[in-house]
Amino acid sequence: MDYLLKNCDFVLTWINDEPKVLRNVDIAISDGLITGVGTITMGGFEKIDCSGHVVIPGLVNAHTHTPMSLLRGFYDDAELMTWLNKMWSVERELTRDVIALGSELSIIEMIMSGTTAFIDMYHYPDVTADVALKYGLRAALGSTFIDTLRKPSCVENELRNFVSTYGKSQLVRPLINVHSIYAVSRDTLLRARDLSNELDLPIQVHVSETRDEVYESKRRYGMFPVEYLNSLGLVSSKSQLIHLGWVTNWELGIIARVNARVTHAPTSNMKLATAGHFPMRELMDMGVIVTLGTDGPASNNSLDMFREMKMAVLLQRHSYWDVSIKALHAFKAATINGYRLLGLNGGCVGSGCVADLVLLDLGSPRLQPIRGDNLLSNIVYSADGSDVDMVIVNGRIVYDKSRDYWVFRERAREIGERLNDFIRKFL
Amino acid sequence: MDYLLKNCDFVLTWINDEPKVLRNVDIAISDGLITGVGTITMGGFEKIDCSGHVVIPGLVNAHTHTPMSLLRGFYDDAELMTWLNKMWSVERELTRDVIALGSELSIIEMIMSGTTAFIDMYHYPDVTADVALKYGLRAALGSTFIDTLRKPSCVENELRNFVSTYGKSQLVRPLINVHSIYAVSRDTLLRARDLSNELDLPIQVHVSETRDEVYESKRRYGMFPVEYLNSLGLVSSKSQLIHLGWVTNWELGIIARVNARVTHAPTSNMKLATAGHFPMRELMDMGVIVTLGTDGPASNNSLDMFREMKMAVLLQRHSYWDVSIKALHAFKAATINGYRLLGLNGGCVGSGCVADLVLLDLGSPRLQPIRGDNLLSNIVYSADGSDVDMVIVNGRIVYDKSRDYWVFRERAREIGERLNDFIRKFL
Repeated sequence: MDYLLKNCDFVLTWINDEPKVLRNVDIAISDGLITGVGTITMGGFEKIDCSGHVVIPGLVNAHTHTPMSLLRGFYDDAELMTWLNKMWSVERELTRDVIALGSELSIIEMIMSGTTAFIDMYHYPDVTADVALKYGLRAALGSTFIDTLRKPSCVENELRNFVSTYGKSQLVRPLINVHSIYAVSRDTLLRARDLSNELDLPIQVHVSETRDEVYESKRRYGMFPVEYLNSLGLVSSKSQLIHLGWVTNWELGIIARVNARVTHAPTSNMKLATAGHFPMRELMDMGVIVTLGTDGPASNNSLDMFREMKMAVLLQRHSYWDVSIKALHAFKAATINGYRLLGLNGGCVGSGCVADLVLLDLGSPRLQPIRGDNLLSNIVYSADGSDVDMVIVNGRIVYDKSRDYWVFRERAREIGERLNDFIRKFL
Repeated sequence: MDYLLKNCDFVLTWINDEPKVLRNVDIAISDGLITGVGTITMGGFEKIDCSGHVVIPGLVNAHTHTPMSLLRGFYDDAELMTWLNKMWSVERELTRDVIALGSELSIIEMIMSGTTAFIDMYHYPDVTADVALKYGLRAALGSTFIDTLRKPSCVENELRNFVSTYGKSQLVRPLINVHSIYAVSRDTLLRARDLSNELDLPIQVHVSETRDEVYESKRRYGMFPVEYLNSLGLVSSKSQLIHLGWVTNWELGIIARVNARVTHAPTSNMKLATAGHFPMRELMDMGVIVTLGTDGPASNNSLDMFREMKMAVLLQRHSYWDVSIKALHAFKAATINGYRLLGLNGGCVGSGCVADLVLLDLGSPRLQPIRGDNLLSNIVYSADGSDVDMVIVNGRIVYDKSRDYWVFRERAREIGERLNDFIRKFL
């Protein structure tokens, strides 16, 4: 289906990496791409009246653990390692059915709050991929190396199967997940590196999240975590390094030199009291592609990328004692940089961009007063996911509030009840 | 009107300062008070079916500047003093009409997101009080001493008039606002103290918000800000001290000794990059009544107390590098402590509590899965204002989403357009 979004009151996009507001334009979409922005009178489109709406690029949740909504609120008041051990005690008993339910719940929440793509780290990625495809959301995911829970050879087999099944999908992009340097051996790291080279896949890894991880890395390997990964050939333009809360400036140099990608997950870091500081300004100044993620719904406990954008600005300002990180930096991380990480021309509203778009309700009380000059501010600091009226992914309407709200809500409630039946045996 | 809230799935309340979850109860409300919680079969009530809902005490926004929604998104990327000077440049030209519009917009946003009472610092408090009364929201407010903008004698006259007009109101509670030690003279501080004693009114003041304020206080008066206020008799059980980001432990001792009230405004502090640390754990451990506020909608830029509760926990965990501040502390600050600050038996769902209640949609996707054991977590970490279905203040239904949503939204949009007409001349 080709769409013409008519009479969009405001459009927020990127032109040469600067945010740009357009007024009263139409947007043409064909074959999953935006084919025109302006006053468009051509026929042959299904028209959608967008008056009363702001159109923004879709948001990329660059790091999450989708099925973990099943553990939302289950265990919230602990620091990282205690928390992880508790999570793993349940995760050892997860079935594909339970994972499917958790993923579906999270995907419903993500779509309803304007996320058009997510990057996932979890087990049974085929289960989550199928749910993403069913709902029409983009997903980058793959099997996860974590020696404490699974044999590396099993993970490798699963990954090879995953790539052969989903490698040609338009919406699903395989990747290799490595939990962390403390949850896998050196051999597993080398195995992941070799698979990445052989299959040409990106690698996502949690790194330098806690002081303990850093101290232990220095003690065991004589190197800081990014140095250690780099010494094994795991820091490159195919790497996505998550967290980086305790990182040296020479490690930033390594990251910038090889053009590795990085992801900030401020809410999760704060909730798990990992402290530290993700050096967002230095990384952006060095030209590194900085992205944003909510992390999993058991450590956030929300998947709303509007809230995450605000949190990133707030935490950065708190850490730097200045206002050098602004709304535009968070919006950039969540949109155009997210699509760069995915290797797509997206996060923008212009001809040739992938048609991943979100329509916000211009009349939402919390966004008033709204004008061109405060549009970006109001989106980052005042909006939340509930302001989303429509979500388009790859040129397809995957959420239309007026049509889908109650259906999605009922399904989420039903899933919630089924997850409760599963969780109760661990209480 | 007397109401019977029938079949509430969950109720979250406080019993002996511990959070407590009740299942499947009814709540009787008469003459603005809760008169029973349990299985209630008496007649004479208007029944409200609350199945599918969670009932929580109303949230108290303990510090805001209500009319400032008119400046939302107007100037977001500056540190406190630069930002304040920019705000004041517009505020010098505000009329009563514009203030009424800003207050109404904020009050709509607050009601829709579950706030039942707010404490305000601004000019023309009668204007804001009238809007609060029209919407049925509780408000504590009064004239604001700020020598940089207004003559103290004018403020005193306005205050005396305000007290004589609103002093007997059920919903409006007069107080004295003093902007800060840097925006008023010593004489004005003494005048405020004497008025507080004469009229028996609380005093709200911003204090120890920035390093500059602290250094300047030490340089000029040889004392830290709380010490200085205390030396003038302005720290007592009638004081409400806002921010306290840069405070010594002996100042905490003064606060605890005299039982002064304190308010944390984490989002605003982070957004304005004031850094520092509000010592929430020490204050709570000393028995001080800690409350939470969003601060004004031009420095937050949201009035959603659900978001503020989460932010408080996150920022505290980030500062302490541990998880000692938990969901329950934020919920306590926003509910029962807020009502203590207002001098009311509220923030609870039990016989004798004021009937200020919020109904949340149990089926909201972001709250799933939801059970008794994770109810508090999900409310603090996952909910936002959009989950509010009904708000009751003083026994009256002030917001019923199914009845009021579109009316409130349309009115907010209309106000937004009128505020834009005013703001455009400053752009």
